[in-house]
Amino acid sequence: MVKYPHSLNRRSTPPKRSLEKNETNFANRGMSFESAINASNEYYLMKNIAVIHKKPTPVQIVKVDYPRRSRAKIVEAYFRQASTTDYSGVYKGHYIDFEAKETRQKTAFPMKNFHAHQIEHMSKVLQQDGIAFVLLYFATLDETYLLPARALVDFYAIDLGSKSMPLDYIKKMGFMIQQAAFPQVPYLDIIEKNFLGGDSYQ
Amino acid sequence: MVKYPHSLNRRSTPPKRSLEKNETNFANRGMSFESAINASNEYYLMKNIAVIHKKPTPVQIVKVDYPRRSRAKIVEAYFRQASTTDYSGVYKGHYIDFEAKETRQKTAFPMKNFHAHQIEHMSKVLQQDGIAFVLLYFATLDETYLLPARALVDFYAIDLGSKSMPLDYIKKMGFMIQQAAFPQVPYLDIIEKNFLGGDSYQ
Repeated sequence: MVKYPHSLNRRSTPPKRSLEKNETNFANRGMSFESAINASNEYYLMKNIAVIHKKPTPVQIVKVDYPRRSRAKIVEAYFRQASTTDYSGVYKGHYIDFEAKETRQKTAFPMKNFHAHQIEHMSKVLQQDGIAFVLLYFATLDETYLLPARALVDFYAIDLGSKSMPLDYIKKMGFMIQQAAFPQVPYLDIIEKNFLGGDSYQ
Repeated sequence: MVKYPHSLNRRSTPPKRSLEKNETNFANRGMSFESAINASNEYYLMKNIAVIHKKPTPVQIVKVDYPRRSRAKIVEAYFRQASTTDYSGVYKGHYIDFEAKETRQKTAFPMKNFHAHQIEHMSKVLQQDGIAFVLLYFATLDETYLLPARALVDFYAIDLGSKSMPLDYIKKMGFMIQQAAFPQVPYLDIIEKNFLGGDSYQ
């Protein structure tokens, strides 16, 4: 059992945040859910299993200084809201696209974690026969789920993201990911078994 | 015939650069090669043909201020070198990955436009059966080519990017893209015809 510290949703928070408030949520290895996913992607890359990267944080650059010729310094910029998901790449020729989010709630996942743009993006990826999903980490329960984008899009359509998605719905429509050592979040096992094996979500 | 202004390779240049030096390179519509590609991707997105996005510019954030609660202000950051390519997405379930570059040279494309990391990334994408290529714009000639990543990786392997890639090689191994109105850079036509039709590069 590996607990990741509560450190996603960086968009509106500083890159290096205080961890004190989330101390109870730390694993022995002190790795955040995002770090665990990044490490999993590195593992997949090194083993030539897949090429999946996290996209850079979208930043709106307003002012750049040139104190030296060699290196431009950005002196005014702002975090932008992402219009797509955070992770994308290729696995056996298939396009992979996902978002990773976490909550401290125990019975439901707050839909405010997802923006309308992201839902629309995932919907369009599905139209193009891409493989899209979300990885949801329930920090307090220390449980990780892979929920196919179709189930997320459908739930969002009910009331446009105004209420929480019950854990029961996630369990019914998604797949629990057993945390492991290498990789820490072996989500491609789920994809291989349930998406490429003829499941209706692909 | 549409000439794009010389405006790629933003990494080391300010987001809003002076265009005076490149005035001779402007088309009547005043659109840069990068803008033309972005507009093409928007066209593909709107028409439900493909979902392909430019990745955000990678920025290393050093210092963030919080003048107001609502909006964090980045006050120190630097451009990072990209470890992957600029564009990626999905077309009919296939993973698409490419980089767009331009030159004012007339007979060859300088390989210094490509970093070792990008070459390695494209190589890994090919291993995963992704569709990878570069879009090369010869601004002075006003000609655009799609070169499959395999041909780029092979040429790079000769001398690790120290010399220029002859236009003749690009013509032999790649495909000229006829510029059009909608979309301006119809690169997916080439992909459909040459990559999905059983060509050896896929």
